Amino acid sequence: MPSHKSIGRLSLYRSILNRLLRDGVNSLFSHELASLAGATPSQVRRDLMVTGYTGSPVRGYDVRDLLASIGRFLDAPESEGVALVGVGNLGRAIMAFFTGRRPSLTIQAAFDRDPYKVNRVIHGIRCHPMEDLESVLVREHVRVAIITVPAIEAQDIADRLCRAGVKGILNFAPVRLRVLPSVFVEDVDVTMSLEKVAYYSRQGNRAEGI
Amino acid sequence: MPSHKSIGRLSLYRSILNRLLRDGVNSLFSHELASLAGATPSQVRRDLMVTGYTGSPVRGYDVRDLLASIGRFLDAPESEGVALVGVGNLGRAIMAFFTGRRPSLTIQAAFDRDPYKVNRVIHGIRCHPMEDLESVLVREHVRVAIITVPAIEAQDIADRLCRAGVKGILNFAPVRLRVLPSVFVEDVDVTMSLEKVAYYSRQGNRAEGI
Repeated sequence: MPSHKSIGRLSLYRSILNRLLRDGVNSLFSHELASLAGATPSQVRRDLMVTGYTGSPVRGYDVRDLLASIGRFLDAPESEGVALVGVGNLGRAIMAFFTGRRPSLTIQAAFDRDPYKVNRVIHGIRCHPMEDLESVLVREHVRVAIITVPAIEAQDIADRLCRAGVKGILNFAPVRLRVLPSVFVEDVDVTMSLEKVAYYSRQGNRAEGI
Repeated sequence: MPSHKSIGRLSLYRSILNRLLRDGVNSLFSHELASLAGATPSQVRRDLMVTGYTGSPVRGYDVRDLLASIGRFLDAPESEGVALVGVGNLGRAIMAFFTGRRPSLTIQAAFDRDPYKVNRVIHGIRCHPMEDLESVLVREHVRVAIITVPAIEAQDIADRLCRAGVKGILNFAPVRLRVLPSVFVEDVDVTMSLEKVAYYSRQGNRAEGI
């Protein structure tokens, strides 16, 4: 199975290729894609090999064919429904961000405990009450979920998601979730990332002797 | 200099310790903190060593002292101003998310080209016109910036930020930025993360033979 980094780069190649296509670029070479993605040409060739696409040594990669090949590899055969739990500021931004963006991945249900949000449609997505979490997920065969609740609630929500059959969680809460090994968790900790950037921004200055 | 992962974990320990303190927990042992952070006790001890804090073998770590020690290590001596460029859905969510959260890191200026946003105060933060980017950053000594513009504009913004003295960038645009080695860039690519989660959620099921 390809590495996590390789899967991440395939997703990045796709967003780069989509932009190139919009700009009228129809083909490119592995070293060009590598340079745009901050990768090496041999990484690019190895990453793309798992999708079964090789391109032509003379004309390089055909952008449309390569996009289709990455799509067949990365995406579910049919559009995949995603649940989002926690319709606060960050949750709403994620909902707005994904609306209409990825045809293969759609946030199809949101959950919150706030009675002012429940049973409303926000950014085109219905917000259900928290107590309906399990029943909606099972009924709609949702296996991917996004957690945007406060840290203190995240483990409880993760437990409920896993019991309802969820197999992949994108976790924005600053807490390490304990889940079964069969469930994949990716953490996005915005505070941690910003603190890291701030820390290294000062180290760089010190290293330069300022 | 400690590793990027170690800096990230120190930030995570801090958010865990802040929650414990709110719950009335005043001390804990390295193995307890390790378990909450998904790390090993020896990782925790090594990470904390760089902050100069060791704790007591009998009573463990004092939560308040440890928080103060991590803060002295991670944070700038005075509150550090952060600029945010791109006041779209994601930008606004990041602004709302950080408002009043981190006394040591404050978003103090936002930038956008949309005349409906410019010169307004959004989530307590003034939104400046894009053409004032350099002058505001230099005047306010901002060295940390968040990029939440579309991918196609991100490199141009990064170039302008670096010319204005920015030394650390948290980049939400799905593009690899080219910057001088003295500038630290941390990428947060929400689409890539969700696509990775979706991919592995299906692999898990296959691995289980479903």
